[in-house]
Amino acid sequence: MGWAAPWGPWASPLVRSGNSSASSRSPGVMLTRDRYPVQRLPFSVVSEDDLAALERIVPGRVITDPEELEAPNVDWLRTVRGSSQVLLRPRTTQEVAHVLRYCHERNLAVSPQGGNTGMVGGSTPVFDEIILSTALMNQVISFQDMSGVLVCQAGCVLEELSQYVEERGFVMPLDLGAKGSCHIGGNVATNAGGLRFLRYGSLRGTVLGLEAVLADGTVLNCLTSLRKDNTGYDLKQLFIGSEGTLGVITAVSILCPPRPSAVSVAFLGCPGFAEVLQTFSTCRQLLGEILSAFEFMDAECMQLVGRHLRLASPVQESPFYVLIETSGSEAGHDAEKLSSFLEQVQGSGLVTDGTLATDQRRIQALWALRERISEALSRDGYVYKYDLSLPLDRLYDLVGDLRTRLGPSAKHVVGYGHLGDGNLHLNVTAEAFCESLLGALEPYVYEWTARQQGSVSAEHGLGFKKRDVAGYSKAPEALRLMRQLKALLDPRGILNPYKTLPAHA
Amino acid sequence: MGWAAPWGPWASPLVRSGNSSASSRSPGVMLTRDRYPVQRLPFSVVSEDDLAALERIVPGRVITDPEELEAPNVDWLRTVRGSSQVLLRPRTTQEVAHVLRYCHERNLAVSPQGGNTGMVGGSTPVFDEIILSTALMNQVISFQDMSGVLVCQAGCVLEELSQYVEERGFVMPLDLGAKGSCHIGGNVATNAGGLRFLRYGSLRGTVLGLEAVLADGTVLNCLTSLRKDNTGYDLKQLFIGSEGTLGVITAVSILCPPRPSAVSVAFLGCPGFAEVLQTFSTCRQLLGEILSAFEFMDAECMQLVGRHLRLASPVQESPFYVLIETSGSEAGHDAEKLSSFLEQVQGSGLVTDGTLATDQRRIQALWALRERISEALSRDGYVYKYDLSLPLDRLYDLVGDLRTRLGPSAKHVVGYGHLGDGNLHLNVTAEAFCESLLGALEPYVYEWTARQQGSVSAEHGLGFKKRDVAGYSKAPEALRLMRQLKALLDPRGILNPYKTLPAHA
Repeated sequence: MGWAAPWGPWASPLVRSGNSSASSRSPGVMLTRDRYPVQRLPFSVVSEDDLAALERIVPGRVITDPEELEAPNVDWLRTVRGSSQVLLRPRTTQEVAHVLRYCHERNLAVSPQGGNTGMVGGSTPVFDEIILSTALMNQVISFQDMSGVLVCQAGCVLEELSQYVEERGFVMPLDLGAKGSCHIGGNVATNAGGLRFLRYGSLRGTVLGLEAVLADGTVLNCLTSLRKDNTGYDLKQLFIGSEGTLGVITAVSILCPPRPSAVSVAFLGCPGFAEVLQTFSTCRQLLGEILSAFEFMDAECMQLVGRHLRLASPVQESPFYVLIETSGSEAGHDAEKLSSFLEQVQGSGLVTDGTLATDQRRIQALWALRERISEALSRDGYVYKYDLSLPLDRLYDLVGDLRTRLGPSAKHVVGYGHLGDGNLHLNVTAEAFCESLLGALEPYVYEWTARQQGSVSAEHGLGFKKRDVAGYSKAPEALRLMRQLKALLDPRGILNPYKTLPAHA
Repeated sequence: MGWAAPWGPWASPLVRSGNSSASSRSPGVMLTRDRYPVQRLPFSVVSEDDLAALERIVPGRVITDPEELEAPNVDWLRTVRGSSQVLLRPRTTQEVAHVLRYCHERNLAVSPQGGNTGMVGGSTPVFDEIILSTALMNQVISFQDMSGVLVCQAGCVLEELSQYVEERGFVMPLDLGAKGSCHIGGNVATNAGGLRFLRYGSLRGTVLGLEAVLADGTVLNCLTSLRKDNTGYDLKQLFIGSEGTLGVITAVSILCPPRPSAVSVAFLGCPGFAEVLQTFSTCRQLLGEILSAFEFMDAECMQLVGRHLRLASPVQESPFYVLIETSGSEAGHDAEKLSSFLEQVQGSGLVTDGTLATDQRRIQALWALRERISEALSRDGYVYKYDLSLPLDRLYDLVGDLRTRLGPSAKHVVGYGHLGDGNLHLNVTAEAFCESLLGALEPYVYEWTARQQGSVSAEHGLGFKKRDVAGYSKAPEALRLMRQLKALLDPRGILNPYKTLPAHA
């Protein structure tokens, strides 16, 4: 077992998952209205007069070309397809406000869209909603060098923001596989979790302020840059995680932590899930404040990543793999902590093989194994995706349970995810979409999760595809209050209809 | 300059500020309705029939003895006094629900009260509201050893919870001077900041779930213990920081970080505020992830703490003092980081004297200097208190500005606070309350703060005393939405009336 063993045979490990081109890969995604039982609500239909009026609000940025509308009508997972015939590209908050005021008056439905990288069909239209794209709202508004507070428009791409703040000695408090395409406004609207959650916590803490446009065109300016502000209700929280159903986020103020001067990644093989959990406990104890990620994946994930992406495992074959990242201010100290941690987990048999990386290229290569699982799965066939929060000690039980339950009707049943946050990504692949397999999975997975007091959507949100399962994790009184809030903020229901709120009251 | 210099002459430094007995110290606090221009709203008056009905809901726990009602009618700062004639002590959520359902039907106003340690008159009745005390709701419901998630009733005292989780290897993510009296439910309702905010962030991130009873008696159970849950709107955020105006928090689920194995405190003297800021920058860079608090106080604070509490400064007299706490998992590493930090700030003249403590007793003694400022001020006379968020580089300007502006009409103008969070506590003392001094302070302080895009209440909330200044930090559209939310959740306005929402629309 060599911690500094020669590097294994890697195939293009630096390539990030290319969400942006996914939707143009091939035709043939069924229309949402055909696959799912959903009825169009009585919104107006966009008329020639409407197009002329919208053209006056965002001149030259009203898109009606069917070819240009192909990609934004389909989600990147290729599971839902809308039939929108209009996409708008505002540049300013005022333009968004004018658009919404107009749509509100005309009772036209609107589907806000950032990078369109969501997992639950939250960012694509269901019928003919007008797509309101944040793509041209991509300006940094300000950055404070002393405090690390970034203020920017909603359409800034996460990776570009990361580069921007890293050049200034800070990091974005969130990071995710889709960083190359996703927009910060979409991240906030989804309350994205991602890979740095364990260290820097939720966007509910790191987003200091935001600006949103309400359904009737009112601009709500809560774009403060203060770490603390207890002057009444924290209205911005309404918009974080509400998936564009209560307002359109147009700008964000976010607290960036100082960039750690030393980052290391250990990639380890564990003989069983109990050992994964014990490795996590040991890790929290010995790595303490420098721990910045604790991810896991099972053996089938590694096989799929190898088969479809030709990425080779850097360690011996194991039932489970763990990726541990540390970030600290003093490389020598971090190395010592890591070394005593690795000695302990190796000595006690919790870990059977492992490798350690401290240079950027190898760190990225190790991360690619974990970050590209989703891409490997989508190449394996049709993917049934579940994003669950579960108690740590039961986190993996459902995976084995499902393998038995589904038998050969599933191609693969895999489990991976943000173990440090209690977040399991459970994925099942099949050659093609199959109603009977779906029936074996649902509501079984949701009922299983509800029995553990888990969450049926840990970080992906509800969007279109999960909105009817909210009740497995939310009490009826909570769902009622959600509907009341929707009615208060968007009385005509024009903002991202058919999303987030359960269809059946 | 000796970092391990002999300890100075300390006078009982371990005594925490005793909020709990403050309100019985002396009589003579003016009734709120006499001092402030406020009109009673047309709620019902508690009748004999009401008392009998309430007695059936919380048998033996309906308090009407005027002597017992004296303390809960007055805030601990002795600035407001209500005239409530009834206090209820429910033990369970169901009892709270029954009480509120009854009060809602009868149109009786209710003032929820925890430890009554608030700074803005948010927890005392203004007129004859029924006081709903959480004092008997003080049970821990569960604690998860692996994840550190504590679930408890709202009336648990913060210090007792701290002891409870520390015995199990964790710490509470918040700490404040009033810890010996304040209730966790009140902390959450106020969105308390405190001394560990810099390290563990806002309650908006660390509170995982809560249970609240709405105005009509509906129990809203959002008491999840999951780190991530994106199943729709995050309703608990409505209640965090809404000061009991939208619902009564009855139970809380909170994420406790692992207890650091090494804690150190450095107490330093700085020659000017520019040096304080540079010390902070250096600190963030060299102490990085182990920094857990960065507090400052000015020379007048130290004089008042010396005069009124007989606490002596452990370092040479300086214009400013800084308290830096580190918390880490490896004492040797932390000591090395601290040592190179202290060398640098000493060598570059940012710091002119200092002392370092690593044992519990001396750490507490150093913290007492900072934590007991508020107590020293209250012994100095009538205190005008301002709790502001400001840009770091302008944080102290207002203090000097006010000294010039007020001249001898003020006894003392002092500045201290959570510099690491951009939070200034600005306090002005006078022999007694004086209308003309108030006129010189307000709206001047608020206007000054608004010009810097600061917050006129960083962590104390609005309560009764600050509700009319919310507009200095919140846009009219935001205030309107606040009122709409209040009307949605508490249509009769019975919950903590005269609080949080500005009186003048």
